[in-house]
Order: sequence, then structure tokens, then C-alpha cells
Amino acid sequence: MTEGAGGQPAVDLNCDLGESFGPYRMGDDAAILPYVTSANIACGFHAGDPAVMASTVRLCLEHGVRIGAHPGLPDLQGFGRRELRLSPEEIYGAVLYQLGALEAFLRPYGERLHHVKPHGALYNMAAADGVLARSVAEAVRDFCPSLLLYGLAGSRLIRAGQDAGLSTVSEVFADRGYRPDGSLTPRQEPGAVVHDSSQAIARVLEMVRTGGVAASDGSRVAMAAETVCIHGDHPGAAEFARRIRLELEENGIRVCPPMG
Amino acid sequence: MTEGAGGQPAVDLNCDLGESFGPYRMGDDAAILPYVTSANIACGFHAGDPAVMASTVRLCLEHGVRIGAHPGLPDLQGFGRRELRLSPEEIYGAVLYQLGALEAFLRPYGERLHHVKPHGALYNMAAADGVLARSVAEAVRDFCPSLLLYGLAGSRLIRAGQDAGLSTVSEVFADRGYRPDGSLTPRQEPGAVVHDSSQAIARVLEMVRTGGVAASDGSRVAMAAETVCIHGDHPGAAEFARRIRLELEENGIRVCPPMG
Amino acid sequence: MTEGAGGQPAVDLNCDLGESFGPYRMGDDAAILPYVTSANIACGFHAGDPAVMASTVRLCLEHGVRIGAHPGLPDLQGFGRRELRLSPEEIYGAVLYQLGALEAFLRPYGERLHHVKPHGALYNMAAADGVLARSVAEAVRDFCPSLLLYGLAGSRLIRAGQDAGLSTVSEVFADRGYRPDGSLTPRQEPGAVVHDSSQAIARVLEMVRTGGVAASDGSRVAMAAETVCIHGDHPGAAEFARRIRLELEENGIRVCPPMG
Amino acid sequence: MTEGAGGQPAVDLNCDLGESFGPYRMGDDAAILPYVTSANIACGFHAGDPAVMASTVRLCLEHGVRIGAHPGLPDLQGFGRRELRLSPEEIYGAVLYQLGALEAFLRPYGERLHHVKPHGALYNMAAADGVLARSVAEAVRDFCPSLLLYGLAGSRLIRAGQDAGLSTVSEVFADRGYRPDGSLTPRQEPGAVVHDSSQAIARVLEMVRTGGVAASDGSRVAMAAETVCIHGDHPGAAEFARRIRLELEENGIRVCPPMG
Repeated sequence: MTEGAGGQPAVDLNCDLGESFGPYRMGDDAAILPYVTSANIACGFHAGDPAVMASTVRLCLEHGVRIGAHPGLPDLQGFGRRELRLSPEEIYGAVLYQLGALEAFLRPYGERLHHVKPHGALYNMAAADGVLARSVAEAVRDFCPSLLLYGLAGSRLIRAGQDAGLSTVSEVFADRGYRPDGSLTPRQEPGAVVHDSSQAIARVLEMVRTGGVAASDGSRVAMAAETVCIHGDHPGAAEFARRIRLELEENGIRVCPPMG
Repeated sequence: MTEGAGGQPAVDLNCDLGESFGPYRMGDDAAILPYVTSANIACGFHAGDPAVMASTVRLCLEHGVRIGAHPGLPDLQGFGRRELRLSPEEIYGAVLYQLGALEAFLRPYGERLHHVKPHGALYNMAAADGVLARSVAEAVRDFCPSLLLYGLAGSRLIRAGQDAGLSTVSEVFADRGYRPDGSLTPRQEPGAVVHDSSQAIARVLEMVRTGGVAASDGSRVAMAAETVCIHGDHPGAAEFARRIRLELEENGIRVCPPMG
Repeated sequence: MTEGAGGQPAVDLNCDLGESFGPYRMGDDAAILPYVTSANIACGFHAGDPAVMASTVRLCLEHGVRIGAHPGLPDLQGFGRRELRLSPEEIYGAVLYQLGALEAFLRPYGERLHHVKPHGALYNMAAADGVLARSVAEAVRDFCPSLLLYGLAGSRLIRAGQDAGLSTVSEVFADRGYRPDGSLTPRQEPGAVVHDSSQAIARVLEMVRTGGVAASDGSRVAMAAETVCIHGDHPGAAEFARRIRLELEENGIRVCPPMG
Repeated sequence: MTEGAGGQPAVDLNCDLGESFGPYRMGDDAAILPYVTSANIACGFHAGDPAVMASTVRLCLEHGVRIGAHPGLPDLQGFGRRELRLSPEEIYGAVLYQLGALEAFLRPYGERLHHVKPHGALYNMAAADGVLARSVAEAVRDFCPSLLLYGLAGSRLIRAGQDAGLSTVSEVFADRGYRPDGSLTPRQEPGAVVHDSSQAIARVLEMVRTGGVAASDGSRVAMAAETVCIHGDHPGAAEFARRIRLELEENGIRVCPPMG
């Protein structure tokens, strides 16, 4: 939970955007942008290319949505979802490279990056592996120490960001189950995915209000919900984004980007 | 010719660096760095990768050499030397992307890019094609209007840079012949390459001192020599760099980077 | 026109398939396969990847459609549509490589490639440039001399294929206008595209029956129509394929793959 | 050990070749070819490109060296040495693709592939993981069931090859230590690398003659030595290859490629 103005509870809604490549379209960025408050734009390693980055940046600026980098592993064919064992130095370099590449497209507007959220396998590897997490965090800090670092709530990436002196933003998933230790329930296990939209939204409300949620075994697990990930590549994504935003606001929760 | 302090003639010596990739080595960057005053670092499209960029930046800073970006076409296999017909928008995006990516590796040192020099086929296409030249120049200006733009002396790229409000730096080649119109003698024609080192150095001296050089037909062609390209990937490159620097200085020419 | 059994006029309908890549979908291959008689499968350079190639080969075999290779330039981002100036040796190698790669996916079924049709810029470059055309034709012949070579009717590629001893198949486009010299009307000129489906089909019928068609200036141009290209990536592609097949057959034209 | 003609002990010497890429050179293939009896040629995923493949195939044919494919992971920057977690289907497709691509360059000579040896991380992953090993073996078998499969002696890849009905060839390393279970001593442990050439050659002789070698703890481990890997990218590689071949032959061991 983030404190909004006047102590009102607040939360950010973020979405991965700009994942088209060359002739290939992915997601409907324009449909989802009215409902989110921050966007993570692919940087050309797992998705995106200079033309896509340029048009996605423009679209985000038009909607007043905060722009973050979404660096991934250099694996277009696998969409950055396959583990690739880079060394800590390679991770550092890959992140730094992508941050610079994306921020270049903000320069013509006099803007700067707001945050960084690793993508796919890099997100998961940095959540679990403290050494890689430190490489990611140091690349972000060395690029710009006032950048916000988004990571899985309770993960090693959040810890590494704090160790590096960064402000961090803890991310939760509306449609995923959690284990008692706060990690995501693996996709092959029962309860990994919350298919019902209403239940997913109710879980987010609970996390934002109480700082916790029911785990897979029924126990209660602490879960800092500072930003909620909205998947943009599902059919019905925009409708879900509209609904969750509406219900959050109707329940007195302010939907706004996190402050650095 | 550039005016150095006190009206002394001056010239820059530049070299393409950081052209290794993954396990592959190219050039001996450390050997040539003591003799040049500015370096153009590959940005990962035609050569270079994040690890190479990081170590090349460090090496340049250690030698006090000014760091520029050397953006190329996205064609690693062809080393950016094969013409690829990108649209003006694609050229703009490709250059912007690469400038940002490289400058990211200067951030940890609190440094910024000094100049931009396109590579290979992009250099040649932008020298001859005013539309592409404008795309390159606008990408450089939109990234940072105080960046210097290096281009072939007398080319459309130099003109496009000036039109975009950039300070430009005219490049000459010690080892290449020129046609009466100031363009490079094509490699398949006689006189295209000046094989003799002493003659190559004498031609540079003449260009720096007089602002002109003998063309392939014996006539005299104006040739602004603000920076001289030193090829780093030849055997004997470092020795040639040492000699040309020495002879320039012995002839009262100051060897220094151009000022923005 | 191809002679079918008993002297009946015959024509092939071909379509480019397997142009998805990694997480990215393109075209609806399954929808169009019932109507075409030969398929050109992307080989991983401009589109396609091993998983896509494997599933597309299987799909074609299930539909009894002849399988050809659709080699392209190594430019995924540009979808092989941007001119890249490869040397004749590089063209030869790029085509050979892709033929082998695709045929590997036929091996588990004991099948072999039926034909080759270059893609995009490679198709256009080989149509106009006799040197590149020869490189393509020689790569096809050296891979397997009984392969059919598909190319633009009247182009240098068709001539180069014949010079190399290959059987060639002349391709026409239902939806494109032709100039009096038999070349395609460039897309920026009026009459480049035939938007009306009925008119497009009538033109194909005319070409198959008479071996000619009305050119952009109203004159008549000879046009060998041995195969018709059906674009698969348009909305309505499958419906158009169904209609053209039906109308050809209703008009006494046999729709069948060309024989080697 | 392989039985040569008349019961004479025999062994193959293999080397990885064709690992240059575009403008980048790696290894001195021509220097090592006189001493080896089989070559593993990179197929464009971790190294190599069509031009390199074409010239390497020609070179091997000139030297009468058996040609095998050396498929790797799709990771040029990491030279196929970084683990990339492909699915079994992706491994199958990646291997099949590369076998076809390489064999295409043998077609103009009427030749076929002799063997397959996975490269780098793919070699190591397939040595340890039975599921991936099966994917590799099935791709090889589906491409051509008479291909020989080279793999680490005693590994899961050898077993998977046998299960798939392939003839396998067990590979040993002259310069590596072995643990009591027959696996390679990891590089970070003492005894991982045998630096002394004479000792390395003596170990190979022992393995070929006796079918075993001293392990890191002094115990004796069975080690089928049917082929010995000669590293080509070290300085002194050709000299080492010359020596080991000479000493094997002087000790009555026939150096020849394995028979399918």
C-alpha cells in the first residue's frame, strides 16, 4: 500500500507495453492505457524495436502514464521467458544498455524514465537470486539513482534495490495465488491462477487495504501491494483493467503512480 | 582545420573502437588509444555488446580520450558494411536507440557523449542521401543538441548536421584518394588507396595546413580536415597512429579533440 | 498456364505460410490451407523459427499441400522486405542454408521439398538483377536439381532458373496491375493494386486461359500464369482463396500443384 | 577404444571448426586439419554463418576429414556456452534445423553428414539431463538414422543415442580431469585441467589402451575413448594435435574416423 495525499490508501496499476516487433503485433496498448498509471516498455531485447519504442513512448505521454523500462534477456524468440544464465556482469550490462536505449526515446520530449521493472525470466531470476538481483539494482542505480525499482513483493530484488539505495515498489498480481512464504504459486500447482475476475479484484482490494492476503494453504501472508500488474496481452485485458480501476476507486483507494 | 589555442592549427585524430563481440576479438584498442584524441565506440548493432561497451568506455576514460557513439546498421554478420534500406523513421530510431545505449555506460562515471560518427554503410548512405542524413542529424540533435556530428568532409551529412543546428566535424582519410568533387575515389578505381604511409601523412599535413588536397585528376579540391580517421583494425595501425601524431605535432599542428 | 491431365488448362494456387515467430502470430495458416495447392514456408531468416517450421510442415502434410521453401533476407525486424545488399556468394549461401534447414523438418516424414520461392526483397531483387538471380538459381540447383523454382512471370529469376537447368513456375498476382513490359506496377502508381475481388479473379482467369492480361496502359501483355500467389495475411484471405479456387474450377481450370 | 582393421586399437581425433562469424575470425582451421580425422562444424546458432560453413566444408573435404554438425544453442553473443532453458521440443527443433542447414553445404559435393556433436552448454545439458538428451538423439535419428552421435563418454547423451537406435561415439578430453563417477572435474576444482601436454597425451594413450583412466581421487574409472576432442582455439593447438597423433600412431594405435 502506498499512502496517497491525506493518508488515503493508494496503489499503482502497471502494464507491460510496447511488445510488438517489426511486422508483429502484440497486445492492444491503446485500449489499456486509459486505465493504468504506469507502463513498462520493452527495450528491444525480448520484444520491441526502435519504431515500436518511439510510438509507445508517444502513446504513454499522450495518456499521462508514467514510463518505465522493461528490460529483458536477449532472447526474442523465447520472449525473454526462457532462463539464460548470464553472469552478474552480463546482467548489469544488459540492463544498463536497455535503460539507455529506452530513455533515448524520451529525450525528444525532455522526459526521463520513472521506473524499471525487469521482464519475464529476468524478473523471476532476480526475485530468487540475490547476486543477479544486485546486478539489476546496481545497473538501475548507476543509470539514475532516483529511478524506482519495481519487483515482486518480498523478493530479493526488492531487498537488493533497498541495499543499493533505490526506492522500490512492491508488485502484486491480481490473478496469481501465493504460497505461505510469499512466493508465487508455481503455474503447474493448483491455485496458481485466479481465473475469476471478481475474486482477483477482491484479493487486490484486500492486499491494498490490509497488507496481506490468503495463501494457498489458507494461512495469511503479508503482501505489500504498491503496484498491481495488469496483463495486457489477454483478451479482455482492457475490460479487466477498467473494472479493477473502477472498483479500487469506488472503495476509496486512490489509483496513482508511485512517487520517487 | 580547427583553430587551436592562440590560432595554432589543430586537428583531431579519431578511431573506431569497441568492435569486438561476445567471444570474438577485433582490433587492439589499448595499443591505439595513446595516439588518438577521440574514439567512436560501436553500440551493439554492427559490432560491440554490453560487456565490450563497458570495457571500452573504461579504457577511453583511462586514456582521457573523448568518447563518441558509432551507430551502425543492424547487421552484425555484415559488420554494418552492407547497405540495408531502412526508412528515414527507422534510421532515426536506430540512431537514437544506439546513442542512448552507449551513453548509459558513461553514466556510472558521470560522463556524457562527446560526438557521434555513423559507421560503415550508414556513414556512406548518410554522406550521399540527404533524406537519410537528416534522419541521422535529427536523432543526434533530439538526443542532445550539443553533441558534435562527425561526417565525411563536404558530405550531405555535414550539411544536414548544420541544418539541424549541430556543430559538425569534417572527417578526412589519410589513406584514401579523393575525386575532384571531393568524394572518395571508389575502392575499385586506381588511386583509391594511398598505400605509402609517408605519402598518407604528407596528404594529411597538406589538408590541415591548406584546407585542400590533390584530387585523382591532379586538380586541387577543398577539403576541410577537422578530424582524421585512424583505422584500428590493420596490422601496424598503432605504429601508423604514433607516426602521424608525431609528425603533426612536429609540424606545429596541435592534436586535440574538437570543441563543442 | 500449365497443361493438366488431358490437355485441360491448369494452375497452381500458392501461399506464404509459417510466418509466425516465437510468441508472435501472423496469418491464419489453417484457414487458407484447404484452398491452396502449394505452400511456401518461411525458413527462419525473415520469419519462422524451428517450432513454427515443424508445425507448419505438419499442417501442410495433413492438407496434402506441396511444400516449398520461402527463403528470405536475414532481417527479421524488416520481415525480409528491406533491401539488404548481399554479395552473390552471400545470397547463394543464405538460400542454401535455408533450404537445408526447412527440408530437415520434412525428413521425419520421409518427404522432400517440392519447390522454392524467394521472399520479399529477395524475390524482387532476384526478379530484376540477373547476377543475384543466378545465385538463387544455383543454390536451388546445387541443393536439388529437381526442385521447382517459382518466380515472377517474365523475370530474370525465371530466366536464371532455366539457365541453371531447373524447371520454373511463373507466378502472377491476382491483385496487382502490370506495366506493358510485364513488370508489376509500383505500389505508389495508380492501378498498382486491384482492390475488387471479382475483377482480380477475372484477371486471373484471363491470364490462365489466354496467357496474357491488360497492362496499365490498356495494351495487352503476355503473362504466363502457372501459379497464383494468394496472400495469407489479409483479413478475408481465406474467403478470397475459396472464391478464386471455386471460380477457376467452375470455369474448367484444374487447380493443382505444378509437376517437377 | 575402437577396433581398427585387424583388431588394431583405433581412435578418432575430432576438432570443432568453422567458428568464425561475419568479419570475426576464430581458430586456425587450416593448421589443425592435417592432424584430425573428424570435424564438427558450427551451424550458425552459436557461431558460423553461411559463408563460413561453405568454406569450412570445402576445407574439410580437401583434407579428407569426416564432416559432422556441431549444433549449439541460439546464443551467438555467449558462443553457446551459457545455459538457455529450451523446452524438449525447442531442443529437437533447434538441432534438426542446424543439421539440415549444414548438410545443405555438403549437397553440392554429393556428400552427407557423418556425425553430430552438440556444442557447449547444449553438450553439457544433454550429458546430464536425460530428457534433453532424448530430444537431441531423436532429432539426429529423425534427420538420418545412420548418423553417428558423439557425446561425453558415459553420459546420458550416449545412452539416449543408443536408446534411439543410433551408433554412438564416446568422447574423452585429453586435457581434462575426471571424477570417480566418470564426469568431468568442474573447472573451479583442482585437477580440472591437465596443463602438461605429455601427461595429457599419456592419459589418452591409457584410455585408448585400457578403457580407463585415473580419477581425481586416484581411483580408476572406466572411460571408453572412441574419439578425442582436440581444442582448436588455443595457441599451440596445431602443435598439440600433431604430437598426439604422432604418439598415438607410434604406440600402435590407428587414428581414423569411427565407422557408422
